[in-house]
Amino acid sequence: MEQYGNFTKVDYYYMKRALSLAKKGIGYVNPNPPVGAVIVKEGKIIGSGYHRAYGQHHAERVAIINAKNNGADLRGATMYVTLEPCDHYGKTPPCTDAIIEAGISKVVVATRDPNPASGDGTTKLRNAGIDVQIGLMEEEAKNIMRFFIKSVTNRIPYVTIKYAATLDGKIADLEGNSKWITNTMRKIVHKLRHEHMAILVGANTILKDNPYLNTRLSENIKYLNPIKIILDREGRILKLEDPTNLNIFKTTDNHCFGKVILFTSHKDDSRVKSLEEKVMVIHSEEITPKFILKTLHNLRINSLLVEGGSEIFSQFLGFADEIYAFYALKVLGKGLDVFSCINNSLEDSGKQFKDFEISKLTVSQDKKEFMVVIKRCSLEL
Amino acid sequence: MEQYGNFTKVDYYYMKRALSLAKKGIGYVNPNPPVGAVIVKEGKIIGSGYHRAYGQHHAERVAIINAKNNGADLRGATMYVTLEPCDHYGKTPPCTDAIIEAGISKVVVATRDPNPASGDGTTKLRNAGIDVQIGLMEEEAKNIMRFFIKSVTNRIPYVTIKYAATLDGKIADLEGNSKWITNTMRKIVHKLRHEHMAILVGANTILKDNPYLNTRLSENIKYLNPIKIILDREGRILKLEDPTNLNIFKTTDNHCFGKVILFTSHKDDSRVKSLEEKVMVIHSEEITPKFILKTLHNLRINSLLVEGGSEIFSQFLGFADEIYAFYALKVLGKGLDVFSCINNSLEDSGKQFKDFEISKLTVSQDKKEFMVVIKRCSLEL
Repeated sequence: MEQYGNFTKVDYYYMKRALSLAKKGIGYVNPNPPVGAVIVKEGKIIGSGYHRAYGQHHAERVAIINAKNNGADLRGATMYVTLEPCDHYGKTPPCTDAIIEAGISKVVVATRDPNPASGDGTTKLRNAGIDVQIGLMEEEAKNIMRFFIKSVTNRIPYVTIKYAATLDGKIADLEGNSKWITNTMRKIVHKLRHEHMAILVGANTILKDNPYLNTRLSENIKYLNPIKIILDREGRILKLEDPTNLNIFKTTDNHCFGKVILFTSHKDDSRVKSLEEKVMVIHSEEITPKFILKTLHNLRINSLLVEGGSEIFSQFLGFADEIYAFYALKVLGKGLDVFSCINNSLEDSGKQFKDFEISKLTVSQDKKEFMVVIKRCSLEL
Repeated sequence: MEQYGNFTKVDYYYMKRALSLAKKGIGYVNPNPPVGAVIVKEGKIIGSGYHRAYGQHHAERVAIINAKNNGADLRGATMYVTLEPCDHYGKTPPCTDAIIEAGISKVVVATRDPNPASGDGTTKLRNAGIDVQIGLMEEEAKNIMRFFIKSVTNRIPYVTIKYAATLDGKIADLEGNSKWITNTMRKIVHKLRHEHMAILVGANTILKDNPYLNTRLSENIKYLNPIKIILDREGRILKLEDPTNLNIFKTTDNHCFGKVILFTSHKDDSRVKSLEEKVMVIHSEEITPKFILKTLHNLRINSLLVEGGSEIFSQFLGFADEIYAFYALKVLGKGLDVFSCINNSLEDSGKQFKDFEISKLTVSQDKKEFMVVIKRCSLEL
């Protein structure tokens, strides 16, 4: 048998299957990580599964139930799982118990669980006499669950900036027109909204574009709507006659909140009471990106898609883990810069991206637009 | 035999060979088109060749000489050639005569010669009893000789804009620093300089960066230096103590000129006399891009690489046939815009690119830069 480090080609084959399953949970399981599991016995897959939604069974338990439903005898089987099995009571009982009870004799793990709250599943399994092997396709697994790893490790959400610009880096003309600067790749934007747990825009964008900020354009897939977050320092939205007429209040998110979160330094809260049903207002004298991210972390939000505008992009660039930049074959010349509030020297202009690289570069079908995805290489900061 | 329109798979095979040969002449043959030819008899290539340099034999004659040197009998052979053979006395005698004399019985042509000065080679050959087939891999052939087609058809040079910017479309920081915004793909820039017959920069770029504007970084290939052209409206370079100290005057071009061409509206020509050996000064009250392009066309320059700076980019964007845009993982925020003198509305921002599409999109090896090539789809305007 061909060996790759501690693992064989066959091991890779099964872990790849587990990773494909894990991907199916992306967007649905936040703030949990997407995880997949495959159970193999005598060269055959006897059970498989993935974590489908927050609060539901973990991948390990889904795979075990699947194997039992198939009438399989799990004793002596090997489980391939993309994340170390948990050993704690959360919304569901510990996966370690289910694995031990089933009589599984070997567990191959892609990556360890960085969350101390999950307990030490590996030791628990080994103490029960199970052979635990760790590190197969670890990079791929970490990438799939990067929102979870970032938020558990750094105690702030994973931040993705998404902007659409002209070739010369403008996101709006001098009159502020910005809608559909890029167009053909909008499906990707709606997928991003689904994958991230929350979405952030400035009051300016709300007042100018009146966006819905929900997920659309999904074909045969039910996308989740993200939690909508508005940064409204001066209370421009709060001061409106009836803010709930805005489109952003017309769709609700699919997460536990069901409310729009609004950050403001505006003190007059006479309006806030009437909005209570639709808006969670968070008031603070000074609203920094760090304050917002810490607050969102405490609300168990693991990922934030920053959609603009220019001021917000400028403030959050230093916190970005990933950038989705869409460019159109357009030139504005004068107009609104994507990062209008930043003022770097040439020397400093690249420092920010020291640990980043271009992970994707694609052209639209009509060849009039392109997308570049820029990603932090490692989340272990 | 499989048929593709009028042609067979075998025809394609030989024309592909002729096109590969044609490419070898790119940059060396300006203002002529790069052309390749292959001669086939009884399923074998008996001769081949390409136009190597301006003033030297055309591809057809090179291939015929090659076949004769191989001791081949050309009677009844078929020639595949990427451009319609010429029927006029220029620097060399008509190719039609050589083909007829050799006894070649069939000529397959990729594309007709749009230059009326070349005569009607097709009719001449057909009148001599030769079977002439036209249109095999026409698009590919036109692309290779697009400088020639543009300049013959539109009576101005083919214009390529090349810029290097940050993600937010800046080409220099507020202090004017711009050197090596992108770095890893510099080899491509030097190849572009070789391929184009001339290169244009503004006085500002000369005074700020003091560039050589020659070709370097070629591995095992002798690149040609382009004709250097400076736009110096106010005579800022002419007014220098000794302009010939500038690096741009330290390398000479490999074309007939050997001189830098300088466009100016500056009237005091006391300095011009002392520069006569190194500079061709072209004086005009009003210097528009159109005036420059017409003048260069009259000087038989078929292609112009516009290298900056921002003002020059802004003025020539409307005349661009192709754009090489390099982007680095850098953000400047405030800084010099690539097209600082343009002011489009969002509605107008894409009109310019109606007939353009992205023809290439590549990432650098270190994944810190990317290049997008944008090209006019058709030169028949």
